[in-house]
Amino acid sequence: MKELATYAALVDSFRKLPGIGTRSAERMANSVLEMRKEDALEFAKAIENAKTRVHKCPICGLYTEEETCEVCKDSTRNHDICLVVVNPKDATSFEAVNNFKGVYHVLGGLLAPAKGIGPEALSIDALKTRVKDENIKEVIVATSPTLEGETTALFIAKILEPYDVKVSRLGYGLPAGSTLEYADPLTLSRALEGRKTL
Amino acid sequence: MKELATYAALVDSFRKLPGIGTRSAERMANSVLEMRKEDALEFAKAIENAKTRVHKCPICGLYTEEETCEVCKDSTRNHDICLVVVNPKDATSFEAVNNFKGVYHVLGGLLAPAKGIGPEALSIDALKTRVKDENIKEVIVATSPTLEGETTALFIAKILEPYDVKVSRLGYGLPAGSTLEYADPLTLSRALEGRKTL
Repeated sequence: MKELATYAALVDSFRKLPGIGTRSAERMANSVLEMRKEDALEFAKAIENAKTRVHKCPICGLYTEEETCEVCKDSTRNHDICLVVVNPKDATSFEAVNNFKGVYHVLGGLLAPAKGIGPEALSIDALKTRVKDENIKEVIVATSPTLEGETTALFIAKILEPYDVKVSRLGYGLPAGSTLEYADPLTLSRALEGRKTL
Repeated sequence: MKELATYAALVDSFRKLPGIGTRSAERMANSVLEMRKEDALEFAKAIENAKTRVHKCPICGLYTEEETCEVCKDSTRNHDICLVVVNPKDATSFEAVNNFKGVYHVLGGLLAPAKGIGPEALSIDALKTRVKDENIKEVIVATSPTLEGETTALFIAKILEPYDVKVSRLGYGLPAGSTLEYADPLTLSRALEGRKTL
């Protein structure tokens, strides 16, 4: 019994998704075959629509279906403060918090010289241009507290030094609801450094 | 920032897949947005093709792109022996073993009176008709050794009693490569029952 060509093609497509191995891809392909026809065609259409209608905002890099994104064209938001995120999903997380009312800038990755990812692979030049042209007063770099995240944040701070802009990064410390017992030494040391007067 | 409608629709479609929650669906939707356009369109096309070209073999229920499946129309296979499987994927597992050369019959599920799944929801009548009309000499029921699997196997044996056909089920016992130490009591008891003379 040979594998069906259309089935094999579908499994291959599912395997291109992040974290999906052959077994999971097969399970998903089987579930597509078991779906009602209209659901499967809707699924296919959803992929096509998302890919053809959604593109990156030419200003900040967030996803949009319009010319520029909702955040960039919203005059009620504070365009003086720019939160630099690695990918559009991180911006969604901050939007869910609902207390950041500035604008965003999507880097598209982190500096990783070992992997050949230099500043030119990220939208760092575009950030510099925005700081210059848009009169941005504060840039908050929201990279993760990892080696690559820190390196990228420091690099951005250095690049923006010549301009009249405050560059900050997210505060480090104990995550909300955590217990001291399970905090690792680095987190504890950063929580000490970041202590606040009561 | 509102969620984009096309993005939300894509996340919804991924969530319909087995074992995919909101987080995973979002990650997959993001990866579609980051894919090259041709890959995404190929993905959409793969779903559409699979769903429109692949259907169930009217004889046995395996997936096929032809009128009847490769196994049913293969005259070199032994049409006297029929392996009853729950779904097409199980048949693929037996094909991978490569020592079963009979034909298949896909049940489409297991009897589960508590969930309202009776014999009429499965292709048990079709199996009876095949046994009668196709001169099948042995039916091997390959259901899992679970309560529902056993019930279904016994039910099939009972239904086929009036016909001149041998009905068997898969052998139970220790799985290959396992250690006695970790075998559960039921498996051990079945391995004892199923002992073979050396």
